[in-house]
Amino acid sequence: MGRWVIISTERAKRPDEFLPLVPPQNEKQPDCPFCAGNEGKTPPEITAVRPSGGNPNGPGWTLRVVPSISPLLRIEGKLEHRARGLYDVCTGVGAHEIIVETPEHVSSTAHLTPEQISQVLEVAIQRIKDLEKDPRFKYVLFFKNYGPAAGEGRFRHSRSQLIALPVNPIRLKDKLHGAQQYYEWKERCIFCDILRQELDSQQRIAVETTHFVALAPFASRFPFELWVLPKIHSADFTQLTPEHRKDLAGILKITFSKLSRVLSDPPCNTILHTAPFRRPRTGYWRTIDADFHWHLEIMPRLTRVAGFEWGTGFYINPTSPEEATKFLKEAELPVPAHG
Amino acid sequence: MGRWVIISTERAKRPDEFLPLVPPQNEKQPDCPFCAGNEGKTPPEITAVRPSGGNPNGPGWTLRVVPSISPLLRIEGKLEHRARGLYDVCTGVGAHEIIVETPEHVSSTAHLTPEQISQVLEVAIQRIKDLEKDPRFKYVLFFKNYGPAAGEGRFRHSRSQLIALPVNPIRLKDKLHGAQQYYEWKERCIFCDILRQELDSQQRIAVETTHFVALAPFASRFPFELWVLPKIHSADFTQLTPEHRKDLAGILKITFSKLSRVLSDPPCNTILHTAPFRRPRTGYWRTIDADFHWHLEIMPRLTRVAGFEWGTGFYINPTSPEEATKFLKEAELPVPAHG
Repeated sequence: MGRWVIISTERAKRPDEFLPLVPPQNEKQPDCPFCAGNEGKTPPEITAVRPSGGNPNGPGWTLRVVPSISPLLRIEGKLEHRARGLYDVCTGVGAHEIIVETPEHVSSTAHLTPEQISQVLEVAIQRIKDLEKDPRFKYVLFFKNYGPAAGEGRFRHSRSQLIALPVNPIRLKDKLHGAQQYYEWKERCIFCDILRQELDSQQRIAVETTHFVALAPFASRFPFELWVLPKIHSADFTQLTPEHRKDLAGILKITFSKLSRVLSDPPCNTILHTAPFRRPRTGYWRTIDADFHWHLEIMPRLTRVAGFEWGTGFYINPTSPEEATKFLKEAELPVPAHG
Repeated sequence: MGRWVIISTERAKRPDEFLPLVPPQNEKQPDCPFCAGNEGKTPPEITAVRPSGGNPNGPGWTLRVVPSISPLLRIEGKLEHRARGLYDVCTGVGAHEIIVETPEHVSSTAHLTPEQISQVLEVAIQRIKDLEKDPRFKYVLFFKNYGPAAGEGRFRHSRSQLIALPVNPIRLKDKLHGAQQYYEWKERCIFCDILRQELDSQQRIAVETTHFVALAPFASRFPFELWVLPKIHSADFTQLTPEHRKDLAGILKITFSKLSRVLSDPPCNTILHTAPFRRPRTGYWRTIDADFHWHLEIMPRLTRVAGFEWGTGFYINPTSPEEATKFLKEAELPVPAHG
């Protein structure tokens, strides 16, 4: 939607040319606040999964949700939106929760079992639905930063984040607006049309399962950028059925394992784009259930964003999506121990 | 214009807390293609300044413009714009020129003299005007990447870049669109209004000269982000008079010297935003000479862009623009040897 990407064949790069990559860090971090036994190092938990029972903030959990130790936004306070001269100021009201995805000190989604990933998705949906009840919030961003170059921070322990926001993200608005324009023109969802075209050509389909597809978008901004979309139309991630959730966990396990294999455990940002909470029947939101299609963006962080990208909003990608797809398709995975 | 920034006082950072910074690299790089004596290592020059005469691609120059060794876009070929299924494809026609700002192996704008900076600006204007004659081009991006973390590359030799584009940058369109909306509402340039408000309050004015201001924008996305704007209204950078150009060189010398002093020689992207070449009297471009105001964006690269920023389009800034201004105002500079 107005976005141009330069697929730079002159500067073409094979996966092993993206350097320097930080070596995978498997060493123990005894002070990691996300490890089993260190529950006291986080703020009191918001929720947790304890299959064999047990007390909050004690042992026996397989997943914990805790408030961020250094939150970007705070849950307390009234939402105030006011002018200061020419500018608008808004109080930093919000919520910032950490989903600790495993009690063990592993960091990559590739090292989680499909069951663990499915549990993360289930709890994320619960938390989003719970945060939706707060009338101050318009959107919850669900994302994961993996690796220091992707903003994971000092502790290499697998976790995703939820940030409830009092305003809708501008990137989401752009996506919704583009999808809406297409819908007005064609009366079809643009993501459904892209899926159909991509499934026909197969050139950019990296992984496919019963209900999901991981594809390299035509105008990939970054090498090995992937979108994971449900094959059936759905605007709202929180409507995911248990069957589809298990299938999504499966495609994520495969996709992250392949990325890790092909790119030697790359730093990565993964971001959910889903329909916002409040949907009045005007403007952007009018047709949202028909025209928007939730998806996960997976962005390995292999290249540097510099003056050209900041100045133009365009991107330079040294690996075409077709090549990235080929490398991912050909990557062989060990026979899984689980799932 | 719809952009929100979280000024994170909880995560507030003083200048010396932005780590790790790469130490300034002053070592010789004998194979640097931008050094005097190595003219043969670049493609033949496009233009150069030789105050005492001399032959092209020989010695005696104070500034050289050469084609990029690994261009993002190529000058040859016809501009073709076509559909491929749902997508648009455009041939990678463009131009990518490097302005070598000094024959000596120094890298930072802070180490150039005001006369050298003025010469860079003069030649950039000449080159933009020359590229404008090519009907395939709609915009020339003028920018500088300084430091490895900002994409400077292996050779630490002061240079800026010009990239002529067959389409208008989406970031420029957003800026033009926002400025146009404001103009329709107020019949005044938003940048002129911002300048007036900021000059009144002085809270975010880091440097001021006769004709220019370097200010920390109210919604700074990055710590120590600065905009350099002319005080008088002007949409088009290439209209700069010689007197104003010298003053601009002066404010840039001071601004980069202060940034270097306060932040220990930070990596930095500097980008010009100016009016595009073709201005039909409809849509975005209708009022462009009245509603747009050219400016340089200076973005020290001190923080990491991660999942939250990519997911939302919002930014988290741990240093308020008022604090950044205070640090820059207080920074003392050595008495300049030149100018």
